[in-house]
Amino acid sequence: METVKYLLPEEKIPQAWYNLVADLPHPPAPVLHPGTQQPVTPDDLLPLFPMGLIAQEASTERWIEIPGEVREILKQWRPSPLFRARRLERALDTPARIYYKYEGVSPVGSHKPNTAVAQAYYNKQEGTRRLATETGAGQWGCSLAMACAFFGLECKVYMVRVSYDQKPYRRAMMEAYGASVSPSPSPETEAGQAILAQDPGSPGSLGIAISEAVEVAAKNPDTRYSLGSVLNHVLLHQTVIGLECIEQMDLAGDAPDVLIGCTGGGSNFAGLAFPYLGRNLAGKGRTRIVAVEPAACPSLTRGRFAYDFGDTAHLTPLVKMHTLGSTFVPPRIHAGGLRYHGMAPLVSHALDLGLIEATSVQQLDAFQAGVTFARAEGIVPAPEANHAVAAVLAEALRCKQEGVSRAILVNLCGHGHFDMQAYTDFAAGKLQNFEYPDHEIALALAGLPSVG
Amino acid sequence: METVKYLLPEEKIPQAWYNLVADLPHPPAPVLHPGTQQPVTPDDLLPLFPMGLIAQEASTERWIEIPGEVREILKQWRPSPLFRARRLERALDTPARIYYKYEGVSPVGSHKPNTAVAQAYYNKQEGTRRLATETGAGQWGCSLAMACAFFGLECKVYMVRVSYDQKPYRRAMMEAYGASVSPSPSPETEAGQAILAQDPGSPGSLGIAISEAVEVAAKNPDTRYSLGSVLNHVLLHQTVIGLECIEQMDLAGDAPDVLIGCTGGGSNFAGLAFPYLGRNLAGKGRTRIVAVEPAACPSLTRGRFAYDFGDTAHLTPLVKMHTLGSTFVPPRIHAGGLRYHGMAPLVSHALDLGLIEATSVQQLDAFQAGVTFARAEGIVPAPEANHAVAAVLAEALRCKQEGVSRAILVNLCGHGHFDMQAYTDFAAGKLQNFEYPDHEIALALAGLPSVG
Repeated sequence: METVKYLLPEEKIPQAWYNLVADLPHPPAPVLHPGTQQPVTPDDLLPLFPMGLIAQEASTERWIEIPGEVREILKQWRPSPLFRARRLERALDTPARIYYKYEGVSPVGSHKPNTAVAQAYYNKQEGTRRLATETGAGQWGCSLAMACAFFGLECKVYMVRVSYDQKPYRRAMMEAYGASVSPSPSPETEAGQAILAQDPGSPGSLGIAISEAVEVAAKNPDTRYSLGSVLNHVLLHQTVIGLECIEQMDLAGDAPDVLIGCTGGGSNFAGLAFPYLGRNLAGKGRTRIVAVEPAACPSLTRGRFAYDFGDTAHLTPLVKMHTLGSTFVPPRIHAGGLRYHGMAPLVSHALDLGLIEATSVQQLDAFQAGVTFARAEGIVPAPEANHAVAAVLAEALRCKQEGVSRAILVNLCGHGHFDMQAYTDFAAGKLQNFEYPDHEIALALAGLPSVG
Repeated sequence: METVKYLLPEEKIPQAWYNLVADLPHPPAPVLHPGTQQPVTPDDLLPLFPMGLIAQEASTERWIEIPGEVREILKQWRPSPLFRARRLERALDTPARIYYKYEGVSPVGSHKPNTAVAQAYYNKQEGTRRLATETGAGQWGCSLAMACAFFGLECKVYMVRVSYDQKPYRRAMMEAYGASVSPSPSPETEAGQAILAQDPGSPGSLGIAISEAVEVAAKNPDTRYSLGSVLNHVLLHQTVIGLECIEQMDLAGDAPDVLIGCTGGGSNFAGLAFPYLGRNLAGKGRTRIVAVEPAACPSLTRGRFAYDFGDTAHLTPLVKMHTLGSTFVPPRIHAGGLRYHGMAPLVSHALDLGLIEATSVQQLDAFQAGVTFARAEGIVPAPEANHAVAAVLAEALRCKQEGVSRAILVNLCGHGHFDMQAYTDFAAGKLQNFEYPDHEIALALAGLPSVG
């Protein structure tokens, strides 16, 4: 039996995004203004985001229509395929039924364009001339650069220094799309200058890069800010993934017992998980939902659910999320997209409500899983996705030990074609695991702002 | 109007490969034994290839059934999408209707797995334990490494030195699949040793790497040789591309006036072109068919149609093809997959019969075209594919100048995610064009073997 593909016809691209907030038993905590500690107003956010996105950020509507022009562009790579990983099942000799949704078919090789196109669209509608953003591994930066090229917007990207050095091909791709890319921390912003003054060799972090991009947007009226994860509207845009999966699993005549996604900011995980979580909440499903994060950046499993800044320089509003503290700088793991101190407030809230589970995976286990997956399925996963794959292999092994056939559904959020240096380093024994002693985590958390 | 995708359902993957030989007005010249200069027999080829492939190499049947197991594996990425490049048309302000078949959706990002899977299958059937091969840019090596992983075969790859240095990520990918990769020329073979003795800094060439892989296969009874292009059976396996396109263009309600593909060994070009050429020959179509090669390696446009060796060390049989001479070492252009001294005998024969046209493109024009394409369509083409894209842009410009709307169909044979260094070098002004003076071409051709 070979790997099976489940494809949907183009007209099955969802007509609307799914907003989990509408179905939550308790509403998420409000976003607070850092000065007043009062809930932010739309006007507070207008220097950073267009009103179309601000409205989505605060919406409690269950379904939000996808604009026709956005949907037309998504059709280039959507609906993305769902695969039954028969060859992997055989290689593992497991009774588990393993399904993977593959988002690597987009032009940049990941799920990120799903929201980049929508964000560029709303900004274009409202007269934005330039978008500023951060990027870790570069998946997001490439996606926004591409979307900006489609809509005729300029694009300025602050790329986390360690990834800028590790992944020059991602930078080259952003520049091919016409974007301007700077390593972060950079001397171009006050936020970057402050970090460089403390540590000229700083590897950077998503928190620092966000500060730089937010600062540029705040200071330039023709520039707005764009974020590749974390925020409600970003997670919303990714729900096309899970909505398609529900139809595709029906095609396969199956339903997931366990759903797995990797989490950095939370968007690919939420994109798959939230539509399924909505079904659970509506009593239509009983899928276990597991978020997998790197042990080197364990916001969900070891962080605190508390108000914190989204960035290091404290330019953003305060959001309640699982966090390691906004000054936490994760080690230089290759899964650059997962090197974020916080976690999407909605994902954090769902964990706090006990609606989902969280676990962490070490870097070496992640890459070993990636190699196993590649040899069986052909697709070489991105380092981020390898964390999810490692959890899938563990679950498949449990199925084997228990002699139980469970259906496992995972979001393979991107391919690793830009990340092969990581595989080379793994094969050469140059990668390592990371485990924080409790006192280091406690120290990082001690810096959390006091709220209320 | 946004870019439009034309998808076929899975059951539309062709059931059989199309063999152009059945429809040619004159048969191609026979392959000759280098010692006797008599046509080779199947037994002559058996040390290198399994009988299943040898039979295809010599077949005159029009349709050759695709084995079920091969077809099942191809389903993972086939049928590949055909796109109408609306955004590119708009960017060019051309009345041309531009369609691209996109082979970058395979796990390795190019068309090469179409034949790799078939070759691994027949070898597995006939007891081969290990396959040896060459690779230029690494698209082929990755594809065969993946196919070998699927079938449990060992894989040994000789990678042209210049690409080994330029494209380390391709090497990493082959190794992730479990293949053993050596830069060529290598000290592991007599052929490699001889080249290194003459020129320790040799950049290598596909001709040299072929010699090494053939030598390893000839000397080891458990090892056979696998070639990623040039041979009839390889071109045959790629005809799934054109066969799908015929159905997809029907879906689009259109038919190509001009068909364009880039040519190195000829397989992606033939894969798209031969089914259309068959229709032309049957009086069912009048598509102009254009092969595009790099000006730096102009076998079709400046080489001679003559018997020559497929490799530099003269270990292969003699084939009649357009060639620059088997000792020709092309300059270090980034389109490593096009750095071959010869051209597929069937493509050469079709050109000799006046059934197709050939043109050449300079490296800088190719990359400029690639950037234009990427900004409009999102997909960053491989350097090889950029040559075809440049010809598309030129044709679209002619349409604009003439005020005529022609349908242009191009094979976008792979993405450039592994080749971003080339884009960086292009943006930095580090790439150059190459033009050979006539006397250099004449000198290279003077070394052709005398046959008959």
